[in-house]
Amino acid sequence: MKGIFITLEGGEGAGKTTQVPFIKAYFEKKSLEVLTLREPGGTPCCEQIRTVLKEKRDDDVLCDEAELLLMYASRAQLTKTVIKPALAAGKVVVCDRYDLSTLAYQGAGRGIKESTIKNVRQAAIGNFAPDLTLLFDLDVKLGMARAGKRGAMDRIESSGDAFFEKVRAGFLRFAKEDPEHIKVLDASLRPDEISAKIKSILDEFYV
Amino acid sequence: MKGIFITLEGGEGAGKTTQVPFIKAYFEKKSLEVLTLREPGGTPCCEQIRTVLKEKRDDDVLCDEAELLLMYASRAQLTKTVIKPALAAGKVVVCDRYDLSTLAYQGAGRGIKESTIKNVRQAAIGNFAPDLTLLFDLDVKLGMARAGKRGAMDRIESSGDAFFEKVRAGFLRFAKEDPEHIKVLDASLRPDEISAKIKSILDEFYV
Repeated sequence: MKGIFITLEGGEGAGKTTQVPFIKAYFEKKSLEVLTLREPGGTPCCEQIRTVLKEKRDDDVLCDEAELLLMYASRAQLTKTVIKPALAAGKVVVCDRYDLSTLAYQGAGRGIKESTIKNVRQAAIGNFAPDLTLLFDLDVKLGMARAGKRGAMDRIESSGDAFFEKVRAGFLRFAKEDPEHIKVLDASLRPDEISAKIKSILDEFYV
Repeated sequence: MKGIFITLEGGEGAGKTTQVPFIKAYFEKKSLEVLTLREPGGTPCCEQIRTVLKEKRDDDVLCDEAELLLMYASRAQLTKTVIKPALAAGKVVVCDRYDLSTLAYQGAGRGIKESTIKNVRQAAIGNFAPDLTLLFDLDVKLGMARAGKRGAMDRIESSGDAFFEKVRAGFLRFAKEDPEHIKVLDASLRPDEISAKIKSILDEFYV
């Protein structure tokens, strides 16, 4: 692959989305074409899958296994039809959430075994992985307060603080296990301070 | 599980759906409650997933991996929230398509490795399996002609004869591997003749 694949990960309200334009501008200044995406979603089919995942419905509460498989269905489609072709064309792909979210949310959060998730991942995307992951780490109560301000919370955002504490601990553990690819950012800083940190990570990564 | 789980499998136009009322009546005569379902689908979330699977769209052709994962997402949800509770309540559950269709369509047909499918199945439904599977076997051209008469064909039905030859061969191979649970029916017979065959299989199975 000629391009660069960068993913933004973290809990709710951590400010990932806010940094997307900064990262886009960073690479565009280097005359690279940048494609920004978000997961789940990004193609017409994936957006339909996103609706099933996000909708709160009392008549049919999505079970953890279906949630996992829908996440990977969307990821398989987006990876094969959008991300890989863009990378092959030499683009920088910046994706707001990707595989680490599944390990953190469905794994650490919901309690699905890591080996189970990795088997499904293998079926969905094989050994494909991001070149660099920026993990936005934030105190759960702070993140939920921020997410709450954006309006009514969706099904997954409504999973409660205890769930998000497990998600956060999961993210930090994965970062510890793979410090070469996963860089932790203190998401309690001001947006411009976070941008500065991202710049120094990208400067080191993209020489 | 106190109930009985029976699945109907086979290619397009094989007459599975036509036999559902006969099987329902068979068990109701024995004072058993019968729940009839079809896959993919059966709950509000599963019906949304069905739409993604069935819709023909040129702007976003579903890749094989996403198709597989969507099938299992629907199956995980239906199994956990509908099939297992019904069986626990002592009902007979009759499902028009289930797991064997995935092995035949996405495995033998699309060419996804059986080990990959079985890993995803494990994540979706563990070792859960039907008590009895009725496999409706029919010449592909005959089946497609029948399916065509029902009106415009959906995305999966439009996969072409070569695909459905592989699907049929897959179904027959699986039946050979597990003759205790999978019973092959000659779907070229008249509906009343097929009903008679089913009756004799059920008489032997349900003593």
